[in-house]
Amino acid sequence: MAGLKGALIGCGFFAINQMHAWKDVKGADIVVICDRDPERLKIVGDQFGIERRYTDAATMFGDGGFDFVDIATTVQSHRALVEMAAAHKTPAICQKPFAKTLNDAKSMVAVCAQAGVPLMVHENFRWQTPIQVVKAILQSGAIGEPFWGRFSFRSGYDVFSGQPYLAEGARFIIEDLGIHTLDIARFILGDVTSLTARTKRVNPKIKGEDVATILLDHENGATSIVDVSYASKPAVEPFPETLIELDGTKGTLRLSQGYRIEVNGPDGIAVSDASPQLLPWASRPWHNIQESVLAIQQHWTDRLADGGETTTSGADNLKTFALVEAAYESATSGRAVDIGAMLQ
Amino acid sequence: MAGLKGALIGCGFFAINQMHAWKDVKGADIVVICDRDPERLKIVGDQFGIERRYTDAATMFGDGGFDFVDIATTVQSHRALVEMAAAHKTPAICQKPFAKTLNDAKSMVAVCAQAGVPLMVHENFRWQTPIQVVKAILQSGAIGEPFWGRFSFRSGYDVFSGQPYLAEGARFIIEDLGIHTLDIARFILGDVTSLTARTKRVNPKIKGEDVATILLDHENGATSIVDVSYASKPAVEPFPETLIELDGTKGTLRLSQGYRIEVNGPDGIAVSDASPQLLPWASRPWHNIQESVLAIQQHWTDRLADGGETTTSGADNLKTFALVEAAYESATSGRAVDIGAMLQ
Repeated sequence: MAGLKGALIGCGFFAINQMHAWKDVKGADIVVICDRDPERLKIVGDQFGIERRYTDAATMFGDGGFDFVDIATTVQSHRALVEMAAAHKTPAICQKPFAKTLNDAKSMVAVCAQAGVPLMVHENFRWQTPIQVVKAILQSGAIGEPFWGRFSFRSGYDVFSGQPYLAEGARFIIEDLGIHTLDIARFILGDVTSLTARTKRVNPKIKGEDVATILLDHENGATSIVDVSYASKPAVEPFPETLIELDGTKGTLRLSQGYRIEVNGPDGIAVSDASPQLLPWASRPWHNIQESVLAIQQHWTDRLADGGETTTSGADNLKTFALVEAAYESATSGRAVDIGAMLQ
Repeated sequence: MAGLKGALIGCGFFAINQMHAWKDVKGADIVVICDRDPERLKIVGDQFGIERRYTDAATMFGDGGFDFVDIATTVQSHRALVEMAAAHKTPAICQKPFAKTLNDAKSMVAVCAQAGVPLMVHENFRWQTPIQVVKAILQSGAIGEPFWGRFSFRSGYDVFSGQPYLAEGARFIIEDLGIHTLDIARFILGDVTSLTARTKRVNPKIKGEDVATILLDHENGATSIVDVSYASKPAVEPFPETLIELDGTKGTLRLSQGYRIEVNGPDGIAVSDASPQLLPWASRPWHNIQESVLAIQQHWTDRLADGGETTTSGADNLKTFALVEAAYESATSGRAVDIGAMLQ
């Protein structure tokens, strides 16, 4: 089978991980890159040996010669670029956050559906090895039907020195990190009907909220807690690990620090190590996320080849995006927010 | 100083712990006991060497000869007995749950206040050694101002074989156990302004709810989670330990299984053991609770001697009782409940 040819738009901080991962993906290669900044374009093009380079996406789409596009820009340009991809019948991956508003996101999903163009959001956290292992254990029935969960990310990691803009937005932790944790909660326990959230800003040097506590009602009747913080100072820094507790009718599962999974079920206690691989181009502690980038891109490639739908399709991601909007709304009003109503 | 003389009403299952503890309390002794069941009265009277025995509380109060009364009956009789104590100007300890309804509880507090009679609720969980140590560490400033907490009790302990009536009530875990966990949350993070709760029945053999997840808004701006379950099967059964996580502006505190306390603050990491004493009359794993019974009864005796107010006075306990009522209300409506309005 001839490999799929891809174009990457946006050569910033995180796109480097995506470019490394594309080198490792079986069945696809990046053949074109695009960035409005000629300097970044040159650095990334030279590093990864990509000859075809554009500073303008419209020109790139006009020239064509690729099977899909990987949009790795910031949120402001997502809608325009996804619409451009749909107009050119080009399957598209879009970085998270998917869109500026839920209405934008709905439009983007609709325009791709109308054009018959696959669309996937680069929501990679659920592709982390430990998260996939947790899902597989749950699906095996080892703890029976889950009725309660906790998805926790409490850290004191200084994300602001590497990404100073994170300190400046009116919204911070739910939009930047909590979006992933909410997606994991959906992935593990299923879709959400209602949500109640509380937020707080502890760090006086930032503008947005750095602590959020979210109570989720899942469609299957389970209750879960999503709690995220960049204002916490645990004895051993777990960044960037998501910790999980699941209680089921037949047992319990705990994903604890150091990628340790403990399952207590009818067959007794089983402890396993769900550590991610340290890929050759990866660096600790980011390797957990870096490995998930490879996994999601391989998933995209495989589904594009076989015509299947990706698990983090645009349509799927609307349900995660709605949780983010609902969390901010609930934190402001103090009330529970009906997710079904938001998705109509 | 001559010791205070006490009368105990109700010689059931838990009252045995109270009688043992009174033997160890400095400054007070039980000199009279009362129970409607002559057999229980004889067993407890003989075991603890109490000569004065009554099957009727009114007759006992009429005869007098004691400085306080310890009401260890079930909730149905609490209001009548507390009113009787107030009428006889007799300081009273009342077992939890304090009353059948919040209105009853308010009346009981009012009648004692009018009579100038001290009233304490036997809310002993906050008197457990590990809980007192957590409070002391927080008050020392070791983790700064707390902004988030979790108070967790997830167990698969078979409470139904020892107390079969627990399986039969329309209400179970919040009223029986969650009331303690909510009181601990108030004790550690302060009073609560609003609460959102979700409940679930997992065990098909019981009538009430055996899982509850509660989101609390504290007056100081902190958010906390109270999560309790008797349907969980952890790998190592923690019954009857309450586990705590606290995040503050300067550090974190974790009370984990085995009474281990880990504090990470500006001075580094400190690990300590907050195990309760195994009193001579106690038995594992109940010794944690048994020690707290001695602690609360010593507290009562000391405050009665020096005229100070107890930390779990009737007036204080209204604020915990309101949380229980609010949790059931919120679980039914799905909405947040305003605690201030309930206490007016």
